[in-house]
Amino acid sequence: MSYDYKVSKFKNNELKESVDQISIEEPLEIIIKYKENNTWIQNTISVTMRTPGDDKNLITGFLFNEKIIENINYIEDIQSIGNPVGKYNLDNKIIVTLNNSKNIDIDKIKRNFLTNSSCGVCGKTSLDTLEMIKKDKIVKSLPKIKYKIIIESSEILRKNQIEFSKTGGIHASGLLDADGNIVALKEDVGRHNALDKLIGYALRKNLLDVTNQFLACSGRLNFDLVQKALMANISILTGVGAPTSLAIDLANKFDMTLVGFVKEDRFNIYSNEDRIIINS
Amino acid sequence: MSYDYKVSKFKNNELKESVDQISIEEPLEIIIKYKENNTWIQNTISVTMRTPGDDKNLITGFLFNEKIIENINYIEDIQSIGNPVGKYNLDNKIIVTLNNSKNIDIDKIKRNFLTNSSCGVCGKTSLDTLEMIKKDKIVKSLPKIKYKIIIESSEILRKNQIEFSKTGGIHASGLLDADGNIVALKEDVGRHNALDKLIGYALRKNLLDVTNQFLACSGRLNFDLVQKALMANISILTGVGAPTSLAIDLANKFDMTLVGFVKEDRFNIYSNEDRIIINS
Repeated sequence: MSYDYKVSKFKNNELKESVDQISIEEPLEIIIKYKENNTWIQNTISVTMRTPGDDKNLITGFLFNEKIIENINYIEDIQSIGNPVGKYNLDNKIIVTLNNSKNIDIDKIKRNFLTNSSCGVCGKTSLDTLEMIKKDKIVKSLPKIKYKIIIESSEILRKNQIEFSKTGGIHASGLLDADGNIVALKEDVGRHNALDKLIGYALRKNLLDVTNQFLACSGRLNFDLVQKALMANISILTGVGAPTSLAIDLANKFDMTLVGFVKEDRFNIYSNEDRIIINS
Repeated sequence: MSYDYKVSKFKNNELKESVDQISIEEPLEIIIKYKENNTWIQNTISVTMRTPGDDKNLITGFLFNEKIIENINYIEDIQSIGNPVGKYNLDNKIIVTLNNSKNIDIDKIKRNFLTNSSCGVCGKTSLDTLEMIKKDKIVKSLPKIKYKIIIESSEILRKNQIEFSKTGGIHASGLLDADGNIVALKEDVGRHNALDKLIGYALRKNLLDVTNQFLACSGRLNFDLVQKALMANISILTGVGAPTSLAIDLANKFDMTLVGFVKEDRFNIYSNEDRIIINS
């Protein structure tokens, strides 16, 4: 989602007015509502700066990727409260009613989100959750992806980044199958939001098949992308930028194949390279 | 801060082992300690994923930019607890002892950081604070910067990005004066951390002179960079990437000059262009 904005462009030693498209960034307050001892409880668990327009998928992916819900059937209802997209529009809320409160530890959730980071949800609690969850189900298996598909993925991603082609200022996460077909792609000013939207959409549409798919992301590969991908059980993550040390550490620890600097003729593999088929 | 890592590079249809440098990303738990009614109180206010090595500046800038402290003399002591930088090193804490607790509203602080966002600290509370603070001191003044200095700033930034030149995966914030001299530059895997480090360093070394300086950042310009720059009273913010809608809204609202897509021969001005001198 973007809008037109009148901008002064300096070029060839002069300033000219022009109209550019700007990616929209607006806060969204995320509230969960659930029953405890026959009483309805409502709690703000996070405020995220996101590109509006796809909040149901965003919130579904967010709750799933952070393991606040175990599956999407926990979501009874999603209600949006707020204004239409506009300038300096700060009062948007989304209330998610959950039908299963037995696993909800609101203090733990709040502790989880006590964070200030480009990595989205972070903090040790998040890593602890990851460790707890992944311990018993390390995927030593499929998919295997041909090197040509990895190479092609950056071009496929670019072609499908509708908003990026308009604004030049928005991240993308794409889900591709082993043959290089794009399953879904989502965009957001926040890298982690793009991934939450993608996973939320894939879950809601029942499109996620981790045995035959991989994840391709714009930008750098840092902690939050690896963590969220691992939570969704995805075992190959590729990106056009550099990985951080913690991204590599997590990929090694939880048996993910991490591929960075994907260009039209090259890429780097940082972990578990056996999932990439080179001689084909 | 970075380390060597053995990576498999695919190029010219073959896979070769090579050693790359990787930017380090590690969590840091930020704890503030203060006296209330003669009792010491200690509270975790945030966990940030940052590049280690400059934590005192990071934390000083963070507390100042988020207006948890009004000036750096509030900081009595900074104590680091943790391990040397290493693989999967998750247990690093920094305890900041404050000598003035009269303005500390821990619930408000915690509410502030209840966030999941690439924008660093966000949420409406943060915007409210900004509005409260800026209301009385809108800078309608200096500096004015020649267009040539803006053009040159992207090259100056690049030359001083020591870590980026090694890893290709780290953000930078630079403080430049009106003649294009670099005052300071800091790098971090998180864009907002780089800015916090820069402001913290400038405050501690008494280098900040907002009447004659501007801020140049790598990457995109979103909410958090504008908010932090405004908190530090900086009135010109430039970046090599695209701004978001909220970045532009804030720049307009609080009289900041926002310049994006700074390249070697061009840039775009999104607000208050009178601070950029074109005919010179």
